Amino acid sequence: MILVLAGGVGAARFIEGLVQVVPPESITAVVNTGDDMELHGLKISPDLDIVTCTLADLIDRQQGWGIIGDTDACMSWLVKLGGPGWFKLGDRDLALHIRRTAMLRAGATLSEVVESFRQSLGVAVKIMPMSDDPVPTYILTDLGEMHFEEYFVRRHAQDAVRGVRYVGIETARPAPGLLELIAAAETILIAPSNPVVSIGPILAIPGVRAAIVASPAPVITVSPIIGGAPLKGPAAPLMRAMGLEVSAVGVARAYAGLLDGIVIDQVDVALAAQIESLGMRVAVTDTIMRGPVEKANLAWVALQLAEARPAAV
Amino acid sequence: MILVLAGGVGAARFIEGLVQVVPPESITAVVNTGDDMELHGLKISPDLDIVTCTLADLIDRQQGWGIIGDTDACMSWLVKLGGPGWFKLGDRDLALHIRRTAMLRAGATLSEVVESFRQSLGVAVKIMPMSDDPVPTYILTDLGEMHFEEYFVRRHAQDAVRGVRYVGIETARPAPGLLELIAAAETILIAPSNPVVSIGPILAIPGVRAAIVASPAPVITVSPIIGGAPLKGPAAPLMRAMGLEVSAVGVARAYAGLLDGIVIDQVDVALAAQIESLGMRVAVTDTIMRGPVEKANLAWVALQLAEARPAAV
Repeated sequence: MILVLAGGVGAARFIEGLVQVVPPESITAVVNTGDDMELHGLKISPDLDIVTCTLADLIDRQQGWGIIGDTDACMSWLVKLGGPGWFKLGDRDLALHIRRTAMLRAGATLSEVVESFRQSLGVAVKIMPMSDDPVPTYILTDLGEMHFEEYFVRRHAQDAVRGVRYVGIETARPAPGLLELIAAAETILIAPSNPVVSIGPILAIPGVRAAIVASPAPVITVSPIIGGAPLKGPAAPLMRAMGLEVSAVGVARAYAGLLDGIVIDQVDVALAAQIESLGMRVAVTDTIMRGPVEKANLAWVALQLAEARPAAV
Repeated sequence: MILVLAGGVGAARFIEGLVQVVPPESITAVVNTGDDMELHGLKISPDLDIVTCTLADLIDRQQGWGIIGDTDACMSWLVKLGGPGWFKLGDRDLALHIRRTAMLRAGATLSEVVESFRQSLGVAVKIMPMSDDPVPTYILTDLGEMHFEEYFVRRHAQDAVRGVRYVGIETARPAPGLLELIAAAETILIAPSNPVVSIGPILAIPGVRAAIVASPAPVITVSPIIGGAPLKGPAAPLMRAMGLEVSAVGVARAYAGLLDGIVIDQVDVALAAQIESLGMRVAVTDTIMRGPVEKANLAWVALQLAEARPAAV
């Protein structure tokens, strides 16, 4: 069984590669919910929806998020009625938020909602939230503290970052079964996602990091930083704010004490020796997931690195 | 000031006539909320939305309800995700429900929501719910008790009706300002709406009937029953279940003790003398509101009947 710690777009694409090289049923994605928020009274789970809809082949592949061919009729009226308009929600997309909110208010857990959506949309990969408890990520900026989506979407990541806080993390419990899955995993993959706001919250849930350290499974990541920058998203200022170099080395350091190996892009081959000196294995390949072939190759390389005996490196 | 007790489609069209013959600002519509319900976790107010969107000229005039040109992208996904599909909700329509639900959950009253929507959509006629307290109408049928919309929309009014119950009516309070408006009204019009499930709930709010009786304003209605049947809707079985004849006479009797006069259709002219013998004035005209001219005529006739001195009839 393969466990994947996942954020949004990069993670979803990485898992699309994995399902080409191993049976989808053998994969469980543990998804960040730090981006979750309430807007228009609706509970929105951006990363969960990106992973679920990508694997259901219903994602808008141009954007990486949202539903393919979605329309904005409802959103235009929400704004007409005085609602906030800075976070775009398509008509089909809204159905996910409406149904999730209704189920949660009726007493379902987020894990149960995720499982219901997965089955309704025909996704074979198992998906779970990192926690059923809300742990919103807040970014401390010069303008004050704001929800990650406010920082990223509303303010276009323009504010200087002073720090990051996972609100409620102290009392958040891992999703039911997560610690057991970590203990039983044959391989633990950390997707090429933002180490600070996508993977960071998952690892910060009490018990999760210790379970990964205790697990016999090899832990492998793919660097989301290529040639000193992420393909998209605000990883650079967030990594810098956490004292991390914006490079594959910085990614490796972000997971210090956890990683057995890291896959880096061929443009970063010069960093391989430095990363190996941190005590982990390195594989070098093309990590830009342009299409199915690149995705499958990346998954294959990551799994090969997981299987490699230390002596073989 | 003209107060109109209003249900849905018939009331909305009647008010469209009124605004042609008196200033819109002089009209207040008090709207039935007995049809209100929660579906998909959203608070739905069918009659309020019909009245508001008709007066905003945004209504789907073929249906009489829903937004013109609306689409069903969200609804199709709600059903895909396992949500109930029997009550159609368009994408634009859903914005009203989402925004209303968000405002109510944030502490606004229904009156405040209605006022906000009215202003956002540019409606000059004042609109208020009958009450800020929920008073759902339940229909007692051979299959048991069910919400009015379940009886009407989900079950297509196919079940034999044994009775009608306005749930919570004992403790429901009139909307803020309603009793004062009744006392100050120059004319009170009861729109051509279902007497049992549209106007009945308004009159059953504690204090409302007494305030209308005490008001010096003439009370005039327009019969929604034409030639022994309503133009649409389930008035016939509901009136029969309440022991009322399905005719203009039955409508007059439904408002016994309240009415000063009733406008009936020309096809029912033979009923005029019988209704007059009940002690109320009668005006006869074409009451089918095909277009603006018929609507304005009907409003004019109703207002003329209100102004008529008893001796003049």
